[in-house]
Amino acid sequence: MTAVAGAAHTRRALPEALWTALSARFGDRLARNASELERHGHEESWHPGVPPDAVVFAESTADVADLVRLCAQARVPVVPFGAGTSLEGHVAALEGGVSLDLSRMTRVLGVRPEDGDCSIEAGVTRAQLNTHLRDLGLFFPVDPGAPATIGGMAATRASGTNAVRYGTIRDVVLSLVAVMADGSVVRTGGRARKSAAGYDLTRLLIGSEGTLGIITELSVRLSPIPETIASAVVTFPSVQSAVECVIGLIQLSVRMARIEFLDAAAIDAVNRYSGLDNETAPTLFLEFHGSEGQVAEQVATVQEAALEHGAGPLHWATLAEDRAKLWKARHEALWAVNATRPGCRSWTTDVCVPISRLAECIVETTADMQALPFRGAIVGHVGDGNFHCLLPLDPGSATELEAAQRFNDRLVRRAIGMDGTCTGEHGIGHGKLDFMMLEHGAGVSVMRAIKRALDPDGILNPGKVLPAE
Amino acid sequence: MTAVAGAAHTRRALPEALWTALSARFGDRLARNASELERHGHEESWHPGVPPDAVVFAESTADVADLVRLCAQARVPVVPFGAGTSLEGHVAALEGGVSLDLSRMTRVLGVRPEDGDCSIEAGVTRAQLNTHLRDLGLFFPVDPGAPATIGGMAATRASGTNAVRYGTIRDVVLSLVAVMADGSVVRTGGRARKSAAGYDLTRLLIGSEGTLGIITELSVRLSPIPETIASAVVTFPSVQSAVECVIGLIQLSVRMARIEFLDAAAIDAVNRYSGLDNETAPTLFLEFHGSEGQVAEQVATVQEAALEHGAGPLHWATLAEDRAKLWKARHEALWAVNATRPGCRSWTTDVCVPISRLAECIVETTADMQALPFRGAIVGHVGDGNFHCLLPLDPGSATELEAAQRFNDRLVRRAIGMDGTCTGEHGIGHGKLDFMMLEHGAGVSVMRAIKRALDPDGILNPGKVLPAE
Repeated sequence: MTAVAGAAHTRRALPEALWTALSARFGDRLARNASELERHGHEESWHPGVPPDAVVFAESTADVADLVRLCAQARVPVVPFGAGTSLEGHVAALEGGVSLDLSRMTRVLGVRPEDGDCSIEAGVTRAQLNTHLRDLGLFFPVDPGAPATIGGMAATRASGTNAVRYGTIRDVVLSLVAVMADGSVVRTGGRARKSAAGYDLTRLLIGSEGTLGIITELSVRLSPIPETIASAVVTFPSVQSAVECVIGLIQLSVRMARIEFLDAAAIDAVNRYSGLDNETAPTLFLEFHGSEGQVAEQVATVQEAALEHGAGPLHWATLAEDRAKLWKARHEALWAVNATRPGCRSWTTDVCVPISRLAECIVETTADMQALPFRGAIVGHVGDGNFHCLLPLDPGSATELEAAQRFNDRLVRRAIGMDGTCTGEHGIGHGKLDFMMLEHGAGVSVMRAIKRALDPDGILNPGKVLPAE
Repeated sequence: MTAVAGAAHTRRALPEALWTALSARFGDRLARNASELERHGHEESWHPGVPPDAVVFAESTADVADLVRLCAQARVPVVPFGAGTSLEGHVAALEGGVSLDLSRMTRVLGVRPEDGDCSIEAGVTRAQLNTHLRDLGLFFPVDPGAPATIGGMAATRASGTNAVRYGTIRDVVLSLVAVMADGSVVRTGGRARKSAAGYDLTRLLIGSEGTLGIITELSVRLSPIPETIASAVVTFPSVQSAVECVIGLIQLSVRMARIEFLDAAAIDAVNRYSGLDNETAPTLFLEFHGSEGQVAEQVATVQEAALEHGAGPLHWATLAEDRAKLWKARHEALWAVNATRPGCRSWTTDVCVPISRLAECIVETTADMQALPFRGAIVGHVGDGNFHCLLPLDPGSATELEAAQRFNDRLVRRAIGMDGTCTGEHGIGHGKLDFMMLEHGAGVSVMRAIKRALDPDGILNPGKVLPAE
């Protein structure tokens, strides 16, 4: 069973001297009021929140370095906080300590259109960056749906709807600035497109969830806004036919920008929530990017494949406004499913499997979902082999929580048995600690050795990523 | 000045008990004869070789694990050896010990066309794998030119001519099997296209040059053999115009498969070596992959850009045989330059800079090269911002070595000053230790902490990647 937040943890006391030092250094950017503490201890998920003892709002890398140095001296935990949109209890202050809020670090430090890259502070969000870039013909492609900070996306190795074409955050980050557990500031590289100089600290920090260092700045690759963008919706007679159509397209290497799957339950929820009238059937939401010729070529291939798999006609949205409406519906699927059951909170699963096993995995999971005491839905970045079950449960019901936990346990074992992973893009937090040994075996010892080496006192986001020994 | 191999190192004695144990375990796969020792202590570069005390030919991950365990007990170094094609002294046994030859680990463990991936042992070469894949319509895209093993390519974070389109080895590896310093065997992940489960051990091992673990197996992504392949050669009035043409194409996001630059000196050497009659001028070798329509679109864009930059007409090679001849010439550039000066060995530089600085960097470097006491040449994977100066020097001449060292030192500082790196794809070995602090600063301490944590006795390829403290 997944550990309940905080169950096995002891809160570390905050010495009075640390309060004094933090107050002197951060003034009114140090908060202790109940509402800030509560807000910083939980995120979007069903996981119960665990509030910190204080919140510090950082405005620069120097702020972060000073905070970490002060906390390191007192051996007090530091839990980084971006937009609070993570899903596995990442921001819960399991051992107390200081929540480090990076959401005010929103400076765009430099944009270099001639290199197709830019440098930003960790609190910049995708929407903010894309507004900033609008007139340059460039965009930042990683789109997890939620209004996450880009620093938070890097910390959790996020991806989202565009990854099938543009890669995950791992692929677009050129280098990072990070504050390590002793307060030292490390720049992990320059802006060259490739480098073979030493250990890949950039990739080590990406996905480390603030447990090895705190990301304060990022240099990221941008993509040119495509000449042509076309979106389409198409329904299928069954889950299997929809997913098999995707598998065929991936095997043909059609470079679609987005291939999103919604099952009939998700479509039904989205229709009600957003007042739409999509056919209630397994559906693919597609997007095509490229020159006019490239898009036409992709569209022809997809139309043929969809027909072969028994789909109806493709419904097109080519105007920017219609496309925005289409993707808004997709991005609101989580809230739409939550809205089907007032008072619920969604447990969102996140397995990812090799594409050849995806239909089998989704079909088995759909069957398994029927036995749950509430009605779940499936949405997925199926071009990557990644899908989410949205389970709207009553967080006060032990029966429902246990049913969801057992379902998720079966799902993760199914995915790992197919050479997949327990999390495609949400990370481990403390919600998936129990699966680390199953997925990584001896690799967990290696990760523990790295954690001990870089954070010997365990002050950086304790209780996350690595299960207790 | 770059350290001379072995200068600051003490060889560790091999205890008699270890000899006995190795002999019992490996029989005639343990070699101690002078020719094997000599062959395993050096590679393609100018760096003087440093032979090991023994060579063990591994045939499985279990062999590697047993060897490492035996050496760990005796605190004796293990230096991995693939094809011996590295360029920065990676295989020199600076502290003595056992050279672990993985070149017999050539099994293809599984090919899954439906997922576009395969699993191989570390000793498989690109040519072997592509021959194996030929009838499946798939290929392994990373092409460093040299007949390297894919395990060695991963260990050194190699790339090569195709990286501009297909990425470097870092981008195509899904997961690894590695033997750690205590002999434990770690599998770094499954085959899902993305995962957010824990620290990225795959990327940590890639580029660690055998100093953190020894890669024994890899799962890698393959690419479909394109429907259409076209190659072309085009000459320019100056180095600057050729590179500026490339910069323009990269900024337009033209997805060429290869964009290789050769300066007039390299063309001259290639002409003589391969009996060709290319015009002796700054030249781009190009390759286009895609559907017929995509290639036609790319070609039109490139032809227009080339004309705008004063280039002559594009000379096409579309037949497989003609393309092979064209790329053979490119891949033989190193040997061609060496052949201009009998008895020489090439010092090959390897900086990489953001694309916007590339013309400036190459032009300044070309001017600087004129002052050398021998005639160098420049070749480059210019689509990545990466280029090599080939410096054919007399390895017995202290004057020439010193001139090359000073030239390389200026070049590296120029590149790092442009937010670039001292090595785009060759790695650090012991040849570039002096630049690690310059490039990484405080990051070097983080890397050292990781090294100490994962290899506390320093038995894995000692003296590489990290400068002495």
